[in-house]
Amino acid sequence: MGARIGVGLLGLGTVGGGVAEILLNPEERHPLVADLDLIRVAVRNVNRPRTVELSDAVLTTDPSEVVNDPNVDVVVEVIGGIEPARSLILQAIANGKSVVTANKAVIARHGPEIASAAKAAGVYVLIEAAVGGGIPIIEPLKQSLGGNRINRVSGIINGTTNYILTRMANEGAAYADVLAEAQRLGYAEADPAADVDGLDAADKISILSALAFGGTVDRDALPTTGISALQGRDVEYARQLGYGVKLLAVAERLAGQGDPLPLSLRVQPTLVPSDHPLAGVNGVNNAILVEGDPIGRVMFYGPGAGAGPTASAVVADILNIAGIRQASGDQGPVDPLLAAGSWRPCVLADSGDIRQRHYVRFNTEDAPGVIGKVGGRFGDAGVSIQSIVQFNASEAGAEIVVITHEVSQRKVIAALDAITSLDEVSGLAAHLGCL
Amino acid sequence: MGARIGVGLLGLGTVGGGVAEILLNPEERHPLVADLDLIRVAVRNVNRPRTVELSDAVLTTDPSEVVNDPNVDVVVEVIGGIEPARSLILQAIANGKSVVTANKAVIARHGPEIASAAKAAGVYVLIEAAVGGGIPIIEPLKQSLGGNRINRVSGIINGTTNYILTRMANEGAAYADVLAEAQRLGYAEADPAADVDGLDAADKISILSALAFGGTVDRDALPTTGISALQGRDVEYARQLGYGVKLLAVAERLAGQGDPLPLSLRVQPTLVPSDHPLAGVNGVNNAILVEGDPIGRVMFYGPGAGAGPTASAVVADILNIAGIRQASGDQGPVDPLLAAGSWRPCVLADSGDIRQRHYVRFNTEDAPGVIGKVGGRFGDAGVSIQSIVQFNASEAGAEIVVITHEVSQRKVIAALDAITSLDEVSGLAAHLGCL
Repeated sequence: MGARIGVGLLGLGTVGGGVAEILLNPEERHPLVADLDLIRVAVRNVNRPRTVELSDAVLTTDPSEVVNDPNVDVVVEVIGGIEPARSLILQAIANGKSVVTANKAVIARHGPEIASAAKAAGVYVLIEAAVGGGIPIIEPLKQSLGGNRINRVSGIINGTTNYILTRMANEGAAYADVLAEAQRLGYAEADPAADVDGLDAADKISILSALAFGGTVDRDALPTTGISALQGRDVEYARQLGYGVKLLAVAERLAGQGDPLPLSLRVQPTLVPSDHPLAGVNGVNNAILVEGDPIGRVMFYGPGAGAGPTASAVVADILNIAGIRQASGDQGPVDPLLAAGSWRPCVLADSGDIRQRHYVRFNTEDAPGVIGKVGGRFGDAGVSIQSIVQFNASEAGAEIVVITHEVSQRKVIAALDAITSLDEVSGLAAHLGCL
Repeated sequence: MGARIGVGLLGLGTVGGGVAEILLNPEERHPLVADLDLIRVAVRNVNRPRTVELSDAVLTTDPSEVVNDPNVDVVVEVIGGIEPARSLILQAIANGKSVVTANKAVIARHGPEIASAAKAAGVYVLIEAAVGGGIPIIEPLKQSLGGNRINRVSGIINGTTNYILTRMANEGAAYADVLAEAQRLGYAEADPAADVDGLDAADKISILSALAFGGTVDRDALPTTGISALQGRDVEYARQLGYGVKLLAVAERLAGQGDPLPLSLRVQPTLVPSDHPLAGVNGVNNAILVEGDPIGRVMFYGPGAGAGPTASAVVADILNIAGIRQASGDQGPVDPLLAAGSWRPCVLADSGDIRQRHYVRFNTEDAPGVIGKVGGRFGDAGVSIQSIVQFNASEAGAEIVVITHEVSQRKVIAALDAITSLDEVSGLAAHLGCL
């Protein structure tokens, strides 16, 4: 038994309730959990019935009572959104309290401000629950993989869209139909934009990138394509060609270095070869691949959302702070591994320089020689092709699907401009990434 | 930049060389790597040519010069084996130095002795590299999953046997042929017993179990079956029935609790359904599944061995110690999360109580009614069957393959005794686990 650690909770919804449940039932968990005291909990309505029993002295409707309570050592913020979350986090830090948050939106947008406030105050801000639900991924990037030169972090980091894509692939269903059912089942919000437009995944990959590469980039400039425009026929053609379609978030360093370090971050529907580890990640699960030197490639897989997994990640962060406090007391400086370090300037690379494989589909006339012309234009632009396949030929026209080898965005765009100018081509019907 | 941390290396083979490589080239890694000084390195022969350049002042053939050097804060033990590794680790601890080791054999057998010496001296012994190569799994079990009640840890934790099994499955090759080629390629030792007899996996699962459940069990009593008796026909029959065969290591709590806590640990060739996440883990890769409450199921996947991945894990541990030292100085007690905690007595459960599914194959006469008799004996013993299939019927006899539902070991053994006593059954030809 070490020193007691006081915990204050901002929010007692799904995740907050899960955290309280763990703190109030420490049996069979790490013994350090028993050293945590749930001191104060801010809720919207004190009288609402809940699954966890808390005394009236613990509950309050005023969140400032949590962040100002002298017995609270660690403030857990699980109310989400930008404000008042940001102000409460900064207030807690100003009061010398460490903060644990599951709030990817506030960290992706105000991470540097919060990190420097924490540094100045000598406290921690830990964010394991902000990405990947219960999957430990923040801590490995900060600590366990610290000996590596990280080259790439990529993965499936939004459970809602992965659920929709899994059902589209398994049932050949249309996007709109699956989304409607996901909303009925509670897997998608009434306003699904943050998920289906890729914004949630963009928040998360910008957080992972900052940890992997040591600096933030302009979150709002991150190229982001969601799945709302994805057509079932492309999922089906991909399947016939040996691929699944996943909403992939990627952060990678471009070849070479630089100061600031040029990075490519992006979120886009992407073809994944069916024997790739990410292809088997289905439903609301998440998986994150980290590639580095000398480790090679490691993958972290598990439930990407939900009360239990997210609460598990929140409690992991509280335990980390509790462990350090018990080891160092209040005096020492913060552990540089646990602290959110920003050690180098990074910048988004020119999007024309991004290199990857591409999947494109054109609507064309069903006429002899069209495939040759399309292939020729790719060749003229210096784009090397892996496969070119005609689908659905009929009097109404045909569809030509092309998968390229790895090539710069600049060359692909030049090729697409040339091809859509062809008389036989009526339009570019789809453009996805490809692993 | 924080305080400098002195590192001493015992051994400069594959892993030791990889660690030195990282320490001497800190660029592009976590900035804390630059605070590590490689002070002293014990080698067998100072004059042997090596890929890393070290001055004569750093190299020594006397390992005690490393563990006794006052400038060494962290001793890295990568010589392997029980002695002199154990004595050197204890000497380093006695000198107030923390220890990082990749040595699963010494930790599986002398873990409690080493942990209590470390506790008395107020230093760390970290072992991330002992299991799963570069995959972060030790730290997640100790820290990131600390809020959970862990129910089960299982996985593929020996790369050599997984390489052999992968080739047996892909090529229909015989065990002995694949082993011979693996030895030629350097994937298997000249004396492959530690790998193919499951001893290495048993060391590793006993380490994971101690971290997951809080106490050690008798390592030498751990039921262990390797792959050396595995026949290619069982791999083939498993494939036809929709399974892969993996050498699975399992540590799980039995239903209910108890003091000491009864655990089942085992290593055995096991059928894994082909849509299970572990089924896709091929070659020398490792994967560990952790199941707990409330997290559900998370998986950690990556290269299970090799210089780079193992060195990555060793450096992660050095960084952890360096971070804590910079935060707390030398005074504070050790962080209870990083310390190897043993917080509750555990014991191996009666093997008859272990519940799992089973795959068994009998050689029988090819006579009418044999399947009925075999099925009847299972029923008499209270063993419920999922499938019973006859293979290879000919004048020489037939083979009957049975996959059971989950059942206690006790009942299965009673059923097998009754069945092998049947006149029509000439013997039990294979008995594997099944997920």
